[in-house]
Amino acid sequence: MDRILLGHGSGGKLMHDLIRQYFSPAFGIEGAGDSAVVNVPSNRLAYTTDSYVVTPLFFPGGNIGDLAVNGTVNDLAVSGAVPLFLTVGFVIEEGFPFDDLKKIIASMSNAARKAAVKIVAGDTKVVNKGKADGIFINTSGIGVLPGERWIAASLIRQGDKVIISGEIGSHGVAVMAERNGLTFAPPVISDTRALNGIVREMYDVASDIHFMRDPTRGGLATTLKEAALESKLCIRIREQSLPIPPGVKGACGLLGLDPLFVANEGILIAVVKASDAEAITSAMRKHEHGRHAAIIGEIADAPSGVVLLETTIGGTRIIDMLQGEQLPRIC
Amino acid sequence: MDRILLGHGSGGKLMHDLIRQYFSPAFGIEGAGDSAVVNVPSNRLAYTTDSYVVTPLFFPGGNIGDLAVNGTVNDLAVSGAVPLFLTVGFVIEEGFPFDDLKKIIASMSNAARKAAVKIVAGDTKVVNKGKADGIFINTSGIGVLPGERWIAASLIRQGDKVIISGEIGSHGVAVMAERNGLTFAPPVISDTRALNGIVREMYDVASDIHFMRDPTRGGLATTLKEAALESKLCIRIREQSLPIPPGVKGACGLLGLDPLFVANEGILIAVVKASDAEAITSAMRKHEHGRHAAIIGEIADAPSGVVLLETTIGGTRIIDMLQGEQLPRIC
Repeated sequence: MDRILLGHGSGGKLMHDLIRQYFSPAFGIEGAGDSAVVNVPSNRLAYTTDSYVVTPLFFPGGNIGDLAVNGTVNDLAVSGAVPLFLTVGFVIEEGFPFDDLKKIIASMSNAARKAAVKIVAGDTKVVNKGKADGIFINTSGIGVLPGERWIAASLIRQGDKVIISGEIGSHGVAVMAERNGLTFAPPVISDTRALNGIVREMYDVASDIHFMRDPTRGGLATTLKEAALESKLCIRIREQSLPIPPGVKGACGLLGLDPLFVANEGILIAVVKASDAEAITSAMRKHEHGRHAAIIGEIADAPSGVVLLETTIGGTRIIDMLQGEQLPRIC
Repeated sequence: MDRILLGHGSGGKLMHDLIRQYFSPAFGIEGAGDSAVVNVPSNRLAYTTDSYVVTPLFFPGGNIGDLAVNGTVNDLAVSGAVPLFLTVGFVIEEGFPFDDLKKIIASMSNAARKAAVKIVAGDTKVVNKGKADGIFINTSGIGVLPGERWIAASLIRQGDKVIISGEIGSHGVAVMAERNGLTFAPPVISDTRALNGIVREMYDVASDIHFMRDPTRGGLATTLKEAALESKLCIRIREQSLPIPPGVKGACGLLGLDPLFVANEGILIAVVKASDAEAITSAMRKHEHGRHAAIIGEIADAPSGVVLLETTIGGTRIIDMLQGEQLPRIC
C-alpha cells in the first residue's frame, strides 16, 4: 500500500492500523480514548489553533509538518505562555503518497521534540481525490501562563521600544521560489522554527514584556498595523534598522514584492519598556534564533493607530495592512 | 460581497473584517491575540481534536457547523470530562457562498450555547477554487476531569453491563439520504447533539463508570470491537435490545446496509458495574437525549477481544470492525 485510501479515514480497521503503525509511535500517543488526559501545572492557560494549507507541501527549510508544529508553538510563545501540548488534525486527499505522509509525520515529531511539546491527540479524515490539495493540517495547542504574565496591545505605552528577533521575509520568499521553480543566489530558506526558547531567554532578563506577536501571514507591516490599531498609539519604525537578508532583498526586488508584507515563520516582534530594551535585545542575540535581533523603532502617542516608516533616504511612509492577498497559501 | 475570496484567508484587511464582522460576534471572542487566555478550575484536563469533512454540508437535522461543535463536545464528555472551551479552524474553498458560511457560523454558535461551551479561538484559511470541497472545519476542545474520574477500556470487568443511550443509525442514514436525493417514510434526521448533559445525569447516580465512547464513524460495531480488544474481554450483545428506529431499519434494508456499522453523532455506549446499570439507565431515560436508553449486553471473560451478537432468531454472530469504508465523509 503506497497511497492513502478513503478507508484510512473511515474509523474502521484501516484507520486503526494507520494510527497504530504511524501516528502513535511518531508522537508517542498512548491509549485510544476519545480525548487525551493531560495535567497542567497552572490554572491559567493559553489556548490556540491554526490550520496549515501551504503549497507546495515541501519547501526549502521545511514542510507543512514542522510548519504546523512550530506555528502553533509560536502562537502560544508570543502570548507569554510555555507551550506544553498539541493536537493534530489531518485532512488528506485520497491517493496521497504514503511516503510523503511519513516524511511529514517525522518532521512533526522532530519539531515537537525540539520545541519540547507533546502531541497528545489526533484525528484523520480522508476526502475523495480532487476534493482537497494533498494534505491540510490543523494543530491546536495549550500552554501555561506563569505567574501574572499578560501580553496585550493595550499594555503598550508611549516611549516603549519595538524589538524584532530576526531577519524578515525568508519564509514567504522560500515558498514562492519553490512554487515557481526559481532559485536565488544567495539561496533563501524558510525560517520555520519554534520561538519558545528565545521567549524564555527574554523573560529571564525582563518580567514585564508588554506585547509580542509573530508576523506570519500579512508580514511585519500587518502585525505592526494591528498593534497600532489595538493600542491606539503610533509605531515609528526605522527602515535602516530592519534586518533583511540579501537573498530576500534581491528576490523581492526582482519580483516587485515589499519584504514588509512577506510572511515569516520564525521571528517575533516585542514591545517593551525603553529601560528594558537593550538588556532584552542582548539576551536575544545570544540565542541561536536571535542573532539578528534589533531595536527597530518606538511608540509615539500620535497619530493614533498609524505605523510610520522612516525610510533610508530620509522620508516617512505610512504603512498599512496587507490588502487582499500577496501570496496565497503561504502557511 | 457574496462569496469567499482568497484574501479572506490572507492575514490582512479582508480577514480582519471577516473576523470582526462574523466570527467574533457569533462566538463572543474578545481581543485579537495569538492565543486565548482561559482559566480552568482543575489541573486535570481532557484535550481532543476532530476535523469535519461531511458531505453534503447541510443534511436533515444539522450541518457541518453543529456537527463540529457537538462531535468535539461529545469526545470530551465520553472521557468523563466537563467540556469548557473549543477552538475552531476553517479551511474554506475560494468562491464559497457567504450565506452558507453565515448559516454554519450561526449553527456553531447555537450548538456551543446549548452545550454550555465557549469557542475561544479560531483560524481561517482560504484555498483556491477546486482545492477543497466547500468547507472543512476542525475543532479542538478542553474539558476538566472532576475528582478522580477516569474512563478506560482497561477498567472494564467481567460481569459489567453495556448500556446504549439511544437509537442507532440516524446520522449515517440522514447523510446518505441527502447525498443521494432519497426520502424515507418515516423520515430520518441526524442525531447530532451534545451529550455532556446526559453524562452529567449518569455521574449524578453513579460515580464509577468504567468506560464510555460515542459510536461515530464505523458505527456501534466498531466501537464495541475496540472496547473488546482494548479490554481483552468479550462483549455479548442482544440484537433484540438494540434500539433501531423504523426509518433506519427500512432504509438499511433497502440499501443493503447494516445499522451496526452506520455512523451516529448523538449517542454513547457505557460499560458499568452490574449493580449500577439499572439506576444509570433510569437516569438516562429521564434526559431528553436518553429516552431510548437500554442495557444491551454484558461483559464475559472469553473469548478475549471478541464481540458476539445474539440475533433475534437465536443465533450468534461475531461482530468485527468496519472494514474499508461503508460511507465516506460521514462527519
